[in-house]
Amino acid sequence: MAEKIHEVINRLLTAKTTRFGVPPGTLVEDISSRKAKVTLIKYDQNTYSSEEIADLTKLNDTIANADPVSVSWLDVDTVHDVTTLQSIGEIFKIHPLTLEDIANPHQRPKLEDGDGYLYLVLSAIYLDSKNKEIIKEQISFILAEGLLITFQEKPNEVFNIIRKRLETVKGRLRKMSADYLLYTLLDVVLDNYFIALNYVNEQINHLSARVDKHPDNDTIYEIQELKQELLVITRYILPIREVLWDLMKIDSEIIHESNEIYFKDLSDHVLQINESLEVLKDSLVSLLQYANSIIGNKLNEIMKVLTVVSTVFIPLNFIASIYGMNFHHMPELEYQYGYHAVLAVMSGLGLFMLVYFKVKKWI
Amino acid sequence: MAEKIHEVINRLLTAKTTRFGVPPGTLVEDISSRKAKVTLIKYDQNTYSSEEIADLTKLNDTIANADPVSVSWLDVDTVHDVTTLQSIGEIFKIHPLTLEDIANPHQRPKLEDGDGYLYLVLSAIYLDSKNKEIIKEQISFILAEGLLITFQEKPNEVFNIIRKRLETVKGRLRKMSADYLLYTLLDVVLDNYFIALNYVNEQINHLSARVDKHPDNDTIYEIQELKQELLVITRYILPIREVLWDLMKIDSEIIHESNEIYFKDLSDHVLQINESLEVLKDSLVSLLQYANSIIGNKLNEIMKVLTVVSTVFIPLNFIASIYGMNFHHMPELEYQYGYHAVLAVMSGLGLFMLVYFKVKKWI
Amino acid sequence: MAEKIHEVINRLLTAKTTRFGVPPGTLVEDISSRKAKVTLIKYDQNTYSSEEIADLTKLNDTIANADPVSVSWLDVDTVHDVTTLQSIGEIFKIHPLTLEDIANPHQRPKLEDGDGYLYLVLSAIYLDSKNKEIIKEQISFILAEGLLITFQEKPNEVFNIIRKRLETVKGRLRKMSADYLLYTLLDVVLDNYFIALNYVNEQINHLSARVDKHPDNDTIYEIQELKQELLVITRYILPIREVLWDLMKIDSEIIHESNEIYFKDLSDHVLQINESLEVLKDSLVSLLQYANSIIGNKLNEIMKVLTVVSTVFIPLNFIASIYGMNFHHMPELEYQYGYHAVLAVMSGLGLFMLVYFKVKKWI
Amino acid sequence: MAEKIHEVINRLLTAKTTRFGVPPGTLVEDISSRKAKVTLIKYDQNTYSSEEIADLTKLNDTIANADPVSVSWLDVDTVHDVTTLQSIGEIFKIHPLTLEDIANPHQRPKLEDGDGYLYLVLSAIYLDSKNKEIIKEQISFILAEGLLITFQEKPNEVFNIIRKRLETVKGRLRKMSADYLLYTLLDVVLDNYFIALNYVNEQINHLSARVDKHPDNDTIYEIQELKQELLVITRYILPIREVLWDLMKIDSEIIHESNEIYFKDLSDHVLQINESLEVLKDSLVSLLQYANSIIGNKLNEIMKVLTVVSTVFIPLNFIASIYGMNFHHMPELEYQYGYHAVLAVMSGLGLFMLVYFKVKKWI
Amino acid sequence: MAEKIHEVINRLLTAKTTRFGVPPGTLVEDISSRKAKVTLIKYDQNTYSSEEIADLTKLNDTIANADPVSVSWLDVDTVHDVTTLQSIGEIFKIHPLTLEDIANPHQRPKLEDGDGYLYLVLSAIYLDSKNKEIIKEQISFILAEGLLITFQEKPNEVFNIIRKRLETVKGRLRKMSADYLLYTLLDVVLDNYFIALNYVNEQINHLSARVDKHPDNDTIYEIQELKQELLVITRYILPIREVLWDLMKIDSEIIHESNEIYFKDLSDHVLQINESLEVLKDSLVSLLQYANSIIGNKLNEIMKVLTVVSTVFIPLNFIASIYGMNFHHMPELEYQYGYHAVLAVMSGLGLFMLVYFKVKKWI
Repeated sequence: MAEKIHEVINRLLTAKTTRFGVPPGTLVEDISSRKAKVTLIKYDQNTYSSEEIADLTKLNDTIANADPVSVSWLDVDTVHDVTTLQSIGEIFKIHPLTLEDIANPHQRPKLEDGDGYLYLVLSAIYLDSKNKEIIKEQISFILAEGLLITFQEKPNEVFNIIRKRLETVKGRLRKMSADYLLYTLLDVVLDNYFIALNYVNEQINHLSARVDKHPDNDTIYEIQELKQELLVITRYILPIREVLWDLMKIDSEIIHESNEIYFKDLSDHVLQINESLEVLKDSLVSLLQYANSIIGNKLNEIMKVLTVVSTVFIPLNFIASIYGMNFHHMPELEYQYGYHAVLAVMSGLGLFMLVYFKVKKWI
Repeated sequence: MAEKIHEVINRLLTAKTTRFGVPPGTLVEDISSRKAKVTLIKYDQNTYSSEEIADLTKLNDTIANADPVSVSWLDVDTVHDVTTLQSIGEIFKIHPLTLEDIANPHQRPKLEDGDGYLYLVLSAIYLDSKNKEIIKEQISFILAEGLLITFQEKPNEVFNIIRKRLETVKGRLRKMSADYLLYTLLDVVLDNYFIALNYVNEQINHLSARVDKHPDNDTIYEIQELKQELLVITRYILPIREVLWDLMKIDSEIIHESNEIYFKDLSDHVLQINESLEVLKDSLVSLLQYANSIIGNKLNEIMKVLTVVSTVFIPLNFIASIYGMNFHHMPELEYQYGYHAVLAVMSGLGLFMLVYFKVKKWI
Repeated sequence: MAEKIHEVINRLLTAKTTRFGVPPGTLVEDISSRKAKVTLIKYDQNTYSSEEIADLTKLNDTIANADPVSVSWLDVDTVHDVTTLQSIGEIFKIHPLTLEDIANPHQRPKLEDGDGYLYLVLSAIYLDSKNKEIIKEQISFILAEGLLITFQEKPNEVFNIIRKRLETVKGRLRKMSADYLLYTLLDVVLDNYFIALNYVNEQINHLSARVDKHPDNDTIYEIQELKQELLVITRYILPIREVLWDLMKIDSEIIHESNEIYFKDLSDHVLQINESLEVLKDSLVSLLQYANSIIGNKLNEIMKVLTVVSTVFIPLNFIASIYGMNFHHMPELEYQYGYHAVLAVMSGLGLFMLVYFKVKKWI
Repeated sequence: MAEKIHEVINRLLTAKTTRFGVPPGTLVEDISSRKAKVTLIKYDQNTYSSEEIADLTKLNDTIANADPVSVSWLDVDTVHDVTTLQSIGEIFKIHPLTLEDIANPHQRPKLEDGDGYLYLVLSAIYLDSKNKEIIKEQISFILAEGLLITFQEKPNEVFNIIRKRLETVKGRLRKMSADYLLYTLLDVVLDNYFIALNYVNEQINHLSARVDKHPDNDTIYEIQELKQELLVITRYILPIREVLWDLMKIDSEIIHESNEIYFKDLSDHVLQINESLEVLKDSLVSLLQYANSIIGNKLNEIMKVLTVVSTVFIPLNFIASIYGMNFHHMPELEYQYGYHAVLAVMSGLGLFMLVYFKVKKWI
Repeated sequence: MAEKIHEVINRLLTAKTTRFGVPPGTLVEDISSRKAKVTLIKYDQNTYSSEEIADLTKLNDTIANADPVSVSWLDVDTVHDVTTLQSIGEIFKIHPLTLEDIANPHQRPKLEDGDGYLYLVLSAIYLDSKNKEIIKEQISFILAEGLLITFQEKPNEVFNIIRKRLETVKGRLRKMSADYLLYTLLDVVLDNYFIALNYVNEQINHLSARVDKHPDNDTIYEIQELKQELLVITRYILPIREVLWDLMKIDSEIIHESNEIYFKDLSDHVLQINESLEVLKDSLVSLLQYANSIIGNKLNEIMKVLTVVSTVFIPLNFIASIYGMNFHHMPELEYQYGYHAVLAVMSGLGLFMLVYFKVKKWI
């Protein structure tokens, strides 16, 4: 997990520097780029179609022939394919600076009112169920009347659940406009935040058990790392609330007034995520203080053992040493029961000490 | 108590995820659901009736025949019975999203101005007198002219005190409108916060006494847990103030202007609860610091004992060891009073050391 | 002092709960109630009269015959006498909720604009010079044109200084209206805050001296308690500023515009009290950190003594033990000066160690 | 330095209480009062005169004959001479409450718009170069058209530099109005803050060096004291910014609009002082943490020495003690080379232990 | 690095004091001054020229003959050459106070709307790649229609990258107005912040590795220093955001409305830098806590070794000492297998202890 965090910070930092010296509004071709998979889903209350668009020029016809009541959802599964981005930018007349923001996977969440469309970008996190890692990716949305374009940083299955619902359930989602689709996708994004926090909570419980037993350096290290991971997540989630507020206040016909209540609902979810984050962070701080107190108490216990043993035996040993001296004239040595008397004194002294420590609650 | 907190956090987190992938505004049937008990209390200055409504369809007639000056209070004792919720929703024309909020027991406190009614939801806490636990439950209120509907998360006796008062005392409560009933119930909710804090205060006193005597790991653990419980309570109480503010500012005829002073009174109580919470939290932080200082001081005391014993006897033992050597030529061994001289020197040295430590205030 | 604080928190918490289940606006008869002493002082520039009112019905006449230019100051020395409160409430037409606030000695400071009067309540603290305790009491003021009523929580002599000034000095106070009398009394209340803080400052100096000498558990406990006492005082003083601001902004003829400058003056005093509180709190935090550092340094010193003694004597003792072995063939034992050589070696080694520790600055 | 701080807090606190029971607006005659020295400087672009005014009644004539383009600067070198204050108050028609504020050397910085004049009071600090102490004094300014009166708490030479510049340099200062003179004097006050902080910075460097070498109790005490001194200075400087803001916003002809830029400049300086204060405070907090870590590390080092010595010699000593037993039948004792074998074993064991500790990096 | 920070604080503090007593608006001749190198770059879409201006009087002609569509960029490579500053001030009619701000290298970042120009000053930091130091310098910008003047504190190559781009690439930069050039230069400044933070991040990784292995005093010292360096950088970067906000809100024709989006972009970068700073600061705080916990755990480990060795051998040694006593009548000594029995008892006792400690997980 530790490496993950440093990676996150590294990306946060290197994001800007890789663009260093390049004029703004220029798309930088990424080395790891591969052809993006572009999927177009069209639906209304009765019909549903889904096709992968290999040749983007066909998209023009599709858009032109658009049924005014249907909704089109165009999904681009990676932002590292600059050619595809540029083509889509031209077809839908997206501003070059917006395109650059889409391509650069290190934006702060924000909402921009473009010419005929809204541009919304935010950071999603989801739990990689295999590696038990929290993955961060940036998702960009272009919302126009009857059209939603989603740009994912890298291919993943976060939105599959909605695709399946669109295909199988003729419910409310199929009747509503494109902004409702946006709401549904954002809801899935926030659900994934809850899942991730749930996983963090489990980890805290594990760490808590480990602190109880044996608060070693590794445990403390992991608590620190988890705390920092929460800090980074906080930085992802907090600006989303501003974005949702802007979305509700925006004077745009693309967001239907009757749907504003749904975005308010999302805003409440963000608040709730943030409060859970605060509680989790407080848990970790408490856990650290608890671990430190336990370390302190352990030291006390160790020292008590040492002190009891030393304090009991050092004086006894001293007595034995006295009668181990080789003076010619030591009358006690010649007593018939001198040896037994000394043993008795020693036993008495030792017992007395043990009782004393018992009273002091050291043993 | 520790488990309670984690449970609270777990519920906070799982709340959202159980709804995962479900379209908004859909009521999820809870497994633990059982038939809700619905009680209708009708009263005015002179009459009072209370009946359990088994067949909700009868409710329609009751409402239709309502006396314009009387107040109806409909109490639903669990929100996990989806069928009952839906029936009530239809009868009183409550918006599906509001119904969903009522059913989902993990809402942030909020006030919503519905169509002809006000919807208010908040978290109540009360002290389970048997298990000495602080229980949290969500309570929803639907307030309309002459009508108050209360939805409790699970059956409990929090509002019994008001039912008895309505039945037995022909006081102010019987003369006033439905919003005054709401005020009275909210007052009971806040009273229960005071009782819970009172219990926390007692626990702090117990913990304080334990820290004085013996600040072990368990004590520190319980302080941490109590601190976190207070943090969670703070998250419940703080938004209630906003809700009350909204209630006073709202431009709705359902809240009679002459009763606004009572809601202002509640708002003052919330402030006072919050201040008590702050004082209690500060107490716990101080207690922790105090415990850590005591642990540190204890270590010092243990080390003093070890140091005094070691420092006194190690040199004496060394002297004895010298005269325990077996050299053939050790003139002192043959002195008549060599043994006594050495004993005298040892006693002197030991006494000197004790005096030295006495002066240094170590013993 | 520790008990005092817990008492304060207890009262803060129990305040509300004793009223539990009682309809608002009802005066609860206190068990500890006794007949209140009601004193009426009337004065203008030339005349001054003071009488104890035993029969409150006479008050009606006195008020009716009031000289329009004179000021009446009615002082009620305890709020636990419900009968008296109710009589006064009827005579001066005070709202029942206001009366209840007066009777309940755990209000947050606030200002309310009643019908023809202003109601102001705040917490005063004063130093009990005998027991060296900081006592808190609640004082309520009802200000009307030409009339000031003061309600003290329990009988005390805080306002005697003003009574004496009214009686003996024909100064500005005698010429001014009732709101100026209010200002004068509030000024005395704030002066008592300064005196209490002064006492706290002295205590900090005492504690500081004790930390220097011997930072034991008691000292740390008292620092913590004093810190918490300051926190409670902060909660008393801070809302007073809001109250004074409200007083200045209020659109009421009872506060003469020419006297507003005096209330602004009081507001400055509250700021100054608060800043002193902050400095005192910072002092206590520093003192605690200092105490902990001293405890840590003490441990180091103890350990140095132990380490020096052990490190010097353990090797020497080992040498002695070697020559205390009983092997038949140990050539050194038979040397003429073997014993002296060993003693020389031991002395040399011991000296070397002492020099080494001297160089390391451990002794 | 410690005494200085406590003195400051004491004065902060006693300030109010000495006035206890005195009606507001009354000048309290200070015991330590002596006749104030009043100096009048008059200048315009061409002329400059400076005279000490012994008889304040002459001041009336001087003011009456004032040249409309010249500026008069009246400096009163102590506020403890009540008679002088009252005379000046009468001549320049200063409000009694303002006069009281001038006389009471414990005001919060503030700006008041009087009748025909502005009253400004703030706290100056300067470094006493002899005793290396930071001295605080209160300075009051009365600014009217063509007139500036300065009241210093006690005689000092802070403003001498400006007097000399007025006398010798026919620069911008000689051409400008009285508000520019105020700006110049405030600039000197802020310069003295920089000098004092510079001195604090030097002290931090000294303390830092001491912590590196030997972080004893004295060092920690001085760090704490310095931290608190900075807290007190923060309380002096922060309100000055508010005052300067009020000065810029004030709708008064006494502040010429063209000079507002200079007061904005001062406001920037206050910000810069405050930022330096924050950096210095952070330095001290870091220094304390560093000192505590060093104390912890030192303890570790001490314990390592003790542990190494004990762990090496205690087992060796045990072996020697075994062969010091007096059993009749101990075959090893009779071996020809038993003694040498034991010595060899001991050396081997000791060496092994030393190597072990070397590997563990304890020595 | 430690020295660097103290130097920074020193400069922060001495900045103001070196000007002490000097009338405002006066340029102070710096001792370290040398002739500034002044470079004029003129470009439009088609032409580009760059020349070093040795004789500033020629500048007048150049400016007069300025082509209305081209952009002039005048770069002054040091602010310590007062003569050059004054000449430029006269030629471009810059206000004396602005000139003084340019010359004084310790300004807070700010934007001022001058007469026909905008004045912007901020602090840049860049990483000295040779010495691996973070260098701070102040950069001032004077922006007028078609003209940008940059004043660097000392000669460096930060802007070379833009010079090269202007010369070689006929891109957007060559087509845009002077405010776009300002944007490009500010972008480079912020890029350098990212690079510096990147370097800090690397250092944190190095320190983190050192803490894992051996958290000595040096490591802790460097963590503290790095933390403080970040605090200083925060103080540089935060006001830049305000400046950019002012720049966007300013009602000036010099900033073309169509370019405002670029300054908004910069503002986002500042936010991002600040968030990275927060994450880095949190990392360092965590690292310190981690280091302290490790120190505490190390102490526990050391004490365990001491305790185990002492507790095992002290009782064994005591047994040996008993049989080393010289009593005449000690029956055990004469037993045939007494010696072997004692050895067996000792081995058993020692083994038992080791098992006991093994169970307790101390070894």
